[in-house]
Amino acid sequence: MSILVVGSVAYDTVETPRERRERQLGGSASYFSLAAARFAPVRAVGVVGDDFRAGDLALLSSRGVDTAGIVRRDGPTFHWSGRYHEDLIERDTLATELGVFQDFAPELPAGWRETPYLFLANIHPALQADVLDRMVAPRLVVLDTMNLWIKTTRRELQEVLARVDVVLLNDGEARLLSGQRSLAAAAAAIKELGPGRVVIKKGEHGALLFGRDSLFSVPALLLPEVVDPTGAGDCFAGGFVGCLAAAGATRDDDDRVFRRAMLAGTAVASACPEAFSVDGVLALDAAEYERRLATLADMMTP
Amino acid sequence: MSILVVGSVAYDTVETPRERRERQLGGSASYFSLAAARFAPVRAVGVVGDDFRAGDLALLSSRGVDTAGIVRRDGPTFHWSGRYHEDLIERDTLATELGVFQDFAPELPAGWRETPYLFLANIHPALQADVLDRMVAPRLVVLDTMNLWIKTTRRELQEVLARVDVVLLNDGEARLLSGQRSLAAAAAAIKELGPGRVVIKKGEHGALLFGRDSLFSVPALLLPEVVDPTGAGDCFAGGFVGCLAAAGATRDDDDRVFRRAMLAGTAVASACPEAFSVDGVLALDAAEYERRLATLADMMTP
Repeated sequence: MSILVVGSVAYDTVETPRERRERQLGGSASYFSLAAARFAPVRAVGVVGDDFRAGDLALLSSRGVDTAGIVRRDGPTFHWSGRYHEDLIERDTLATELGVFQDFAPELPAGWRETPYLFLANIHPALQADVLDRMVAPRLVVLDTMNLWIKTTRRELQEVLARVDVVLLNDGEARLLSGQRSLAAAAAAIKELGPGRVVIKKGEHGALLFGRDSLFSVPALLLPEVVDPTGAGDCFAGGFVGCLAAAGATRDDDDRVFRRAMLAGTAVASACPEAFSVDGVLALDAAEYERRLATLADMMTP
Repeated sequence: MSILVVGSVAYDTVETPRERRERQLGGSASYFSLAAARFAPVRAVGVVGDDFRAGDLALLSSRGVDTAGIVRRDGPTFHWSGRYHEDLIERDTLATELGVFQDFAPELPAGWRETPYLFLANIHPALQADVLDRMVAPRLVVLDTMNLWIKTTRRELQEVLARVDVVLLNDGEARLLSGQRSLAAAAAAIKELGPGRVVIKKGEHGALLFGRDSLFSVPALLLPEVVDPTGAGDCFAGGFVGCLAAAGATRDDDDRVFRRAMLAGTAVASACPEAFSVDGVLALDAAEYERRLATLADMMTP
């Protein structure tokens, strides 16, 4: 079944201790779409500027992403620029140029309101709510967010959180949103806000699923080398939601299908940091994906 | 089968954001012994001062720890004093008063040289080597160490590492010892130094076993509250080595028994931060230990 994603489509300029790449394809919707489309058809909603390369749209399309919801406006594409520290985890944002994203008003092509799976990528919660308002009885709604929205738009974030099934955040965001140091207490507090399930992403330490009535932990795959970690969280979300959509999961299913989705998210996300931009997730073929799932299973077998 | 441990027996003064406890029982050998003794008989080698409370020795004995190797010397017991930050992970050492530990020369009571399992807790590598020299064909030798020895006594540490079967360290120590950022590369480099297996402890993020020919990841149990994390790593080691000794494991066994030992270490270590000093590990009864193993198994089941 299809997935609708709304999020950013961006150009990123990324500096690592070893290399600098300018204006490469990025944004939460781009990473998510390419990761999810290996499992299910994806419909992407976003905005790009008049500088956006036709080849980047063609790339998305060629991988099973319907880009009819990505509108083109006069002005520059959203541009993020950041520099990673030596550990390739910490990073400093050097510039955030919103460009056409400043006035982003999501537009849903005809027929898209009935898409069964909805992923609200990390954008302003009012935009997330706006898209959710227009959907007709989605089977499952998954939301991502970030520190910025927790700090600056908490009320709006809480309003949309009350209407979603699963929220994804990292451990720092879960603590900030809940005011709880313990991740168990943080997840319980976040569930009180609405979502029936909470996924806490911990980067190289894996991820936790606080399910409807169980707790699941998945380790990260160990990478020999990290080239560029940008987008790994969005790729995790793509694998996670993609797997749920392929299985036809609903919010009323038990936790087992969500556990399998955590493994899919982990396996797909592991490819992202192995190359710049979306090249890592693009390079992950079916055989390598299966190999990573098998490695994960072996890492978790007592 | 029995386990011999050599390490520190100390008094700790611990400040957390909520409470301060003075001169409570601590030290790597104390935590290790009480954790391991639930699985197998433990023989402890160490030194205490003339201020050491008879009740603390009696406590160890009552839990199945043979204290015949803990000698009493004139002068003060090793005293460590530290203050934890708000996250209950970071800490500052306020004072380290070696006392009688300064001139510690391990003494092995008659018959102890033949003990089949040897745990070299985190002390100067020359002392670790000295005890190892005196053992007669141990079935399995496990070593713990710390940043201090990696930085100040690397040559001696490498000499003793070449002679042990398993080394336990945390992620920061593994990176410092190997010069590798990737934990997979770090573990591979450390194996080159001698140990056939490397365990990397990651605190609240669990632990990794780089086995003879497989990789195993175990999550940490989630704690509702952390009171005092001091000693959790030594309790992990106690559960790990204790489980191996109870199973009669040898270095030539395949990785399965070492995987099970990782679960035992994790379950025992989870009790340690729930109270000050050794009270957490003492409070863990058999039923609660089994319950934690079952929780861990469920957290890891796809």
